[in-house]
Amino acid sequence: MNLVILEPGEVSDSGDVALSGGRAEHLVKVLKVAPGHRVRVGILDGPLGLATVHSVSRETIGLHCSFDGGCPARPRVDLLLALPRPKVMRRLWAQLSALGVGRILLTNAERVERNYFDTHVLNPECYRPLLIEGLQQAQDTRLPLVTIHRQFKVLVEDDLVGLPSTRIVADPAAITTPVEAIPGNPAERILLAVGPEGGWNSFELRLLASHDFQPVGMGRRTLRTDTACIALLSLINAMERHGPE
Amino acid sequence: MNLVILEPGEVSDSGDVALSGGRAEHLVKVLKVAPGHRVRVGILDGPLGLATVHSVSRETIGLHCSFDGGCPARPRVDLLLALPRPKVMRRLWAQLSALGVGRILLTNAERVERNYFDTHVLNPECYRPLLIEGLQQAQDTRLPLVTIHRQFKVLVEDDLVGLPSTRIVADPAAITTPVEAIPGNPAERILLAVGPEGGWNSFELRLLASHDFQPVGMGRRTLRTDTACIALLSLINAMERHGPE
Repeated sequence: MNLVILEPGEVSDSGDVALSGGRAEHLVKVLKVAPGHRVRVGILDGPLGLATVHSVSRETIGLHCSFDGGCPARPRVDLLLALPRPKVMRRLWAQLSALGVGRILLTNAERVERNYFDTHVLNPECYRPLLIEGLQQAQDTRLPLVTIHRQFKVLVEDDLVGLPSTRIVADPAAITTPVEAIPGNPAERILLAVGPEGGWNSFELRLLASHDFQPVGMGRRTLRTDTACIALLSLINAMERHGPE
Repeated sequence: MNLVILEPGEVSDSGDVALSGGRAEHLVKVLKVAPGHRVRVGILDGPLGLATVHSVSRETIGLHCSFDGGCPARPRVDLLLALPRPKVMRRLWAQLSALGVGRILLTNAERVERNYFDTHVLNPECYRPLLIEGLQQAQDTRLPLVTIHRQFKVLVEDDLVGLPSTRIVADPAAITTPVEAIPGNPAERILLAVGPEGGWNSFELRLLASHDFQPVGMGRRTLRTDTACIALLSLINAMERHGPE
């Protein structure tokens, strides 16, 4: 935990907060904090700051916070992901928020099994703490917005209308158009679509193409969807640091 | 499975092979092959090719192979990784071979728990099938060489002597030197060191620095070691595709 994320309502007007539960336990057992120590803190979807530990008891840690770090920008990339199997999705949440995504749009597709949508991994009670875990790892406060779309066609034709963006779709066959070479308007958001294991079917690919998704690849190696998500987001983030080629 | 990996001894001189077990089951149940279908095959550490299915029974699939695809080059990057906890290491094997690494050197470090080395995840019987799974995903035949080093100092001072390479160490503090900007001689291998959760200690960092490891980062976000491995290998692979900046 490189940053302690606080909920907006947890901090008093004077900047004091009393932590208990998992965060307190981590601070005591792993980071071994003692009164006088300083830790990085951030308000969920709010500013970064520093806190001084003023008390450590068996169950509660008292912190005094000051927020002057500003609020991190929302990550520029959004991820449209064909829902992977629950075990894989469970592992992805924290990695996605650590890498930085503005929105996560989970969708159905022909090669997504219907029962994947019934899993508790799609309940906010399950995924919200995992997303926050990733933010605490990456020192970000911007919680990705999560939406679940059981109808791929409705998603692409209607729900994306309000999301102006450079649109790309990961395609192992797009050997000559690597993701890091996409042009894109730096002022515009990027919407990255990643398909199911086994790929999009031809109807889905055509629908994406007709809604301005450009196929992009990562060379000759075909990756599992979870590995591909991490790899693609890393490449887009690197492009962000340097501008497109 | 995008490629069926065959062991060197499995294929007869005439190119015939009889598959049973997991690969046969995958071909029948997932890829739904029938006589006359063609599948991509590769000999472990050998050439790629195509096979024609000539028989499908309940337990065995007969293939006739022809190898003319040449042998893939060994991936240019080697990974020196402080051993993560067994659950994480288990998940990494297939992802590392899918992304492509020549060697995987697992090492001890102060912040690696000693009992991590006792896990069955470090037995070839456990990790070899996982590495092959990653090769079958990525359509590569080059099995990474795996070595386990319980003494970090001996590894860095002695065992690396025979490995001429551009050496880099992932360092979240190296904000201004992103991995994709490392110069490196394209003819030389790259050795990427990734530390434990919690990082290398200062002795370890100094030892790496004195043995020519340059610190490189990935921007302001600190990632978990498994996410960092995937992200860094993706960035190095992308650099390979385009040459350094």
